[in-house]
Amino acid sequence: MKPSLAKGTRDFSAGEVINRRQIINTLQKNFELFGFQPLETPSFENLSTLTGKYGEEGDRLIFKILNSGDYACKAKEEDWNAKNSQKLISQISEKALRYDLTVPFARYVAMNHGQMVFPFKRYQIQPVWRADRPQKGRFREFYQCDADVVGSESLWQEVELVQLYLKSFSDLKIPVTLHLNNRKVLSGLAEYAGISDQLIDFTVALDKLDKIGKEGVIKELLEKNIEQTSIDKLDFLFSQSDDALQNVKQLKAKFQGIETGTKGVEELEFVLIKCMELGIPSDQLKFDITLARGLDYYTGAIFEVKANGVEMGSIGGGGRYDNLTEVFGVKNIPGIGISFGLDRIYLVMEELNLFPDNTDFGVHYLFANYGEQESLEALKIIAQLRGKGISAELYPEPTKLKKQFTYAEKKGIPNLVFFGEQEIYEGKITVKDLASGEQKSTSLQEFFNNYTA
Amino acid sequence: MKPSLAKGTRDFSAGEVINRRQIINTLQKNFELFGFQPLETPSFENLSTLTGKYGEEGDRLIFKILNSGDYACKAKEEDWNAKNSQKLISQISEKALRYDLTVPFARYVAMNHGQMVFPFKRYQIQPVWRADRPQKGRFREFYQCDADVVGSESLWQEVELVQLYLKSFSDLKIPVTLHLNNRKVLSGLAEYAGISDQLIDFTVALDKLDKIGKEGVIKELLEKNIEQTSIDKLDFLFSQSDDALQNVKQLKAKFQGIETGTKGVEELEFVLIKCMELGIPSDQLKFDITLARGLDYYTGAIFEVKANGVEMGSIGGGGRYDNLTEVFGVKNIPGIGISFGLDRIYLVMEELNLFPDNTDFGVHYLFANYGEQESLEALKIIAQLRGKGISAELYPEPTKLKKQFTYAEKKGIPNLVFFGEQEIYEGKITVKDLASGEQKSTSLQEFFNNYTA
Repeated sequence: MKPSLAKGTRDFSAGEVINRRQIINTLQKNFELFGFQPLETPSFENLSTLTGKYGEEGDRLIFKILNSGDYACKAKEEDWNAKNSQKLISQISEKALRYDLTVPFARYVAMNHGQMVFPFKRYQIQPVWRADRPQKGRFREFYQCDADVVGSESLWQEVELVQLYLKSFSDLKIPVTLHLNNRKVLSGLAEYAGISDQLIDFTVALDKLDKIGKEGVIKELLEKNIEQTSIDKLDFLFSQSDDALQNVKQLKAKFQGIETGTKGVEELEFVLIKCMELGIPSDQLKFDITLARGLDYYTGAIFEVKANGVEMGSIGGGGRYDNLTEVFGVKNIPGIGISFGLDRIYLVMEELNLFPDNTDFGVHYLFANYGEQESLEALKIIAQLRGKGISAELYPEPTKLKKQFTYAEKKGIPNLVFFGEQEIYEGKITVKDLASGEQKSTSLQEFFNNYTA
Repeated sequence: MKPSLAKGTRDFSAGEVINRRQIINTLQKNFELFGFQPLETPSFENLSTLTGKYGEEGDRLIFKILNSGDYACKAKEEDWNAKNSQKLISQISEKALRYDLTVPFARYVAMNHGQMVFPFKRYQIQPVWRADRPQKGRFREFYQCDADVVGSESLWQEVELVQLYLKSFSDLKIPVTLHLNNRKVLSGLAEYAGISDQLIDFTVALDKLDKIGKEGVIKELLEKNIEQTSIDKLDFLFSQSDDALQNVKQLKAKFQGIETGTKGVEELEFVLIKCMELGIPSDQLKFDITLARGLDYYTGAIFEVKANGVEMGSIGGGGRYDNLTEVFGVKNIPGIGISFGLDRIYLVMEELNLFPDNTDFGVHYLFANYGEQESLEALKIIAQLRGKGISAELYPEPTKLKKQFTYAEKKGIPNLVFFGEQEIYEGKITVKDLASGEQKSTSLQEFFNNYTA
């Protein structure tokens, strides 16, 4: 039987684990610098916790876990006989794999809000699973890295999250642009154009401006039966200034008497101005009125991050939402969150050559094996090195040196150590630098002097 | 709808994540010091990869994932109509959650052995899932932490793994005893007593010596129809010396002409003597002839680790095996591995009070919020602190100081910072140590002098 990976899944070997860890550690460090605390939720939840939270398509993509034991006998006769796969799901499956980190977080808050200190700032870096059709860069198991603040409506959270995004990507050395919009501004625009009942059609079309241009957007709006007079009123959207505050000013004027829009543009202005005053350059933070991302979910700020000069969708996104936990019966817990897309960040860093050419797997010394007595002496030195935090290992067999060499090279171990009969007798140690080929004999004392415990 | 956790699963809030991370980081550091490289495999595998590897009971405890789409229509009419839950599993489920880390590792080696460098040393720290009945200390999702070397039969691996176990637990400050046995010695004993065909009955009974005493073991052996003459031949097992080498000597004498037993006792002797010569004290490494653990799997050394003075099963175990990958059609890849039980280690550390009383969540400063202008100035200072790796945050609302205080206290933030209008004007900053109540005003310059980038 020839084994294979399950479709849409990946093994991560040492080099990949180490590169991924570099990203995860950077994010984790920054989350904690900004006062977020870690949370981990289980890989599977009660099916009822997850269903109905991600729309019909989402429900379909949730991986369900088959009940143990005689699951069939508990199914309804009628549905079983009709082979109704859909209806039978909840009868033969009561658990499902985490689909994202937001719903389990909401479940956690709903269960624990009594003992929590608000505002509650949590981060969570865990895998999620989706029964999507696998394709290039899309997997059935992937990591999400989320930071959320709940229990505060302060706009300083928006400002802080902008800083968190930019500092994290700066630490990763990825040049990015953070696109900022506000759901209330989009609502205001629809109201201004008299198409409030077609908000989604309008924003979905506008969101494509980048790809299909002004003509394309107008064509799509017309196709959606939005009238020309409405489109004319929105024409100013196609000639936005590079100066974010100029656009804000223009919107403010248009939104006179439009409450939601005015509130949205004021929120936006607050965030933009504070970020400027904190020294964030305008080419890193852009007011992007076309940004609509997950509109039915967000209620205020909307974020999206793109890597500059790399063809790749967004590598981060998020926004403000109301009532995280309402669906679990707990009201009035507003929040704001951002997410980092680990897989895409990885691809961007590969494309920009931001990972080291030769991954350092961390083993510093390979001690050549000369036989039983020498091995024992070598292990004594190795134990001391490990005690000082230096990784070292003994080649396990006293085979030909050439084979031991090859092992060191292939495993990326930079130094081969000769500690044979002669060296042991003289209290010396010989280290060969495999990159330069240079070989050096020193006393054991001298060798250890390089390292302090 | 009141949400709950799925049965047998847990949320880990910040304090628990941080404590668990302490254990995981210590293990990871030691794995790498010993030359092991990380591997991560997917959470689910093809069902066929997992079934048949863990025995009948194991197969039952594997969590199966229900196929997407119209799974029912693909089931065999006959089995469906008979509501044969057991037979239908493989027809409506083609994926299953990882049950341990060994089989996925074997699958990885079988798929990649052509490009791998042997001996291959990998470690893996990932969750596994079992549909066990949940009970105290037993969960349906838990972490395994494994290190394995494959492709080498050198007994130095045994010696190294003893060192790895003892150094890791020493770093965690858990006093332990490592029990060592050898499968071949057990086989040799059975042969010696003429009960080779009852090896399992014999070792299962012997394994209970600790709990049921000599009388109990003999009673169980008799119940299993092992003859009194055989039991008499094994009587010396009940009066083992505290001196491991003495016991080895005795076994050697008994095993004259018994090939397997002789080989086993020689292997054991090698490991014991080398470990002694490397300075491992005899109270940390014990030859335990009763140890049988997973006998059908191991072929040489058997390890088990127990925490001293704590009522808890083993907190680690492992051993040598042949043919890791044979079941996947790849022969001659022998190996040896050890495993650390994260959950039990956690419980032991709690019992021994090895976690800090007050978990340090890492946020060093909470800046009080005095209003918009002061907040902006505070965020400028906070950004500088974060740039220096110091975690700090601004309370998001300009509420009563008392409330801000409480937030700092509950979140375990040690310092509250006052940076109000007066301070800003004077270029000063006031820091209150919440533990001592001490409050100190310094110039900004002086404040930052505490930190270098």
